[in-house]
Amino acid sequence: MSNTQITAEPGMPHIIITREFSAPRGLVFRAHTEPGLLVRWLGPRDLTTTIDHWDVRNGGTWRYVQRDPDGNQYGFHGVFHGDPSPDAIVQTFEFEGAPGHVCLQTMTLAEHGGSTLMRAVLAFQSVDDRDQMVASDMERGTRDSGDRLDELLAKLQVS
Amino acid sequence: MSNTQITAEPGMPHIIITREFSAPRGLVFRAHTEPGLLVRWLGPRDLTTTIDHWDVRNGGTWRYVQRDPDGNQYGFHGVFHGDPSPDAIVQTFEFEGAPGHVCLQTMTLAEHGGSTLMRAVLAFQSVDDRDQMVASDMERGTRDSGDRLDELLAKLQVS
Repeated sequence: MSNTQITAEPGMPHIIITREFSAPRGLVFRAHTEPGLLVRWLGPRDLTTTIDHWDVRNGGTWRYVQRDPDGNQYGFHGVFHGDPSPDAIVQTFEFEGAPGHVCLQTMTLAEHGGSTLMRAVLAFQSVDDRDQMVASDMERGTRDSGDRLDELLAKLQVS
Repeated sequence: MSNTQITAEPGMPHIIITREFSAPRGLVFRAHTEPGLLVRWLGPRDLTTTIDHWDVRNGGTWRYVQRDPDGNQYGFHGVFHGDPSPDAIVQTFEFEGAPGHVCLQTMTLAEHGGSTLMRAVLAFQSVDDRDQMVASDMERGTRDSGDRLDELLAKLQVS
């Protein structure tokens, strides 16, 4: 089960992702910014995520590595623009397998009736870059991440 | 006289700017990264630019203020993604008159026969944001900046 919506209009250098979480936005925000929580939900289920560094502030850089069961490693890094808040986390994002191809990600969290709507806009340097991202495993990773975050938020609210 | 090309396709959240300069790319790069040179060409001719801070490195933040003859002030800030080099300067950009509206700018410099082709891709979070930028004074500012940079590069090569 997944209520993740992924929109990638043909010919547009954007991907828009939305998902509803049954949790207050403060908690959803914490899950996106505290490295100890982030590694528990980020990425496809069969990959493990290790944070290299994670500096949540304006100009703060971050990097993490994901490893699959065969030992392959996938590095990602970026920079925060502005101090992240529940209103918006704005950051650059680069997959180290395609150096020089950077995207700008803007995530907003809107709470209503105890639930939180996450909306992320991924803006790419070209339609080709966007299409490469769509052709990669991003859809599975995004849906798995949402499901895993759902599960983590449920645990955090019980405990 | 201006050889600046500004392309803004309808319905696309991008602006692409190109311009040829009669100078080696190392010098064009210096003019984009050294604050003492930057203030001598950046912006429309009738505005003066003051650097608030300017930290040219991965994760480095920058901010400058432009003042018009009537004393109005326009602030801009952003963050560098990756260490800037003549191959690419990648940075976020936000006009403080429209907080929360961020664009990702990628500038590349290609030298051939002593001239340098500058190409910049401005990727916006939405088509509306792109259209707002086009509707602003950006075209005049971009053409003036290119002309002023041309003049500065000529002076730097004579002296």
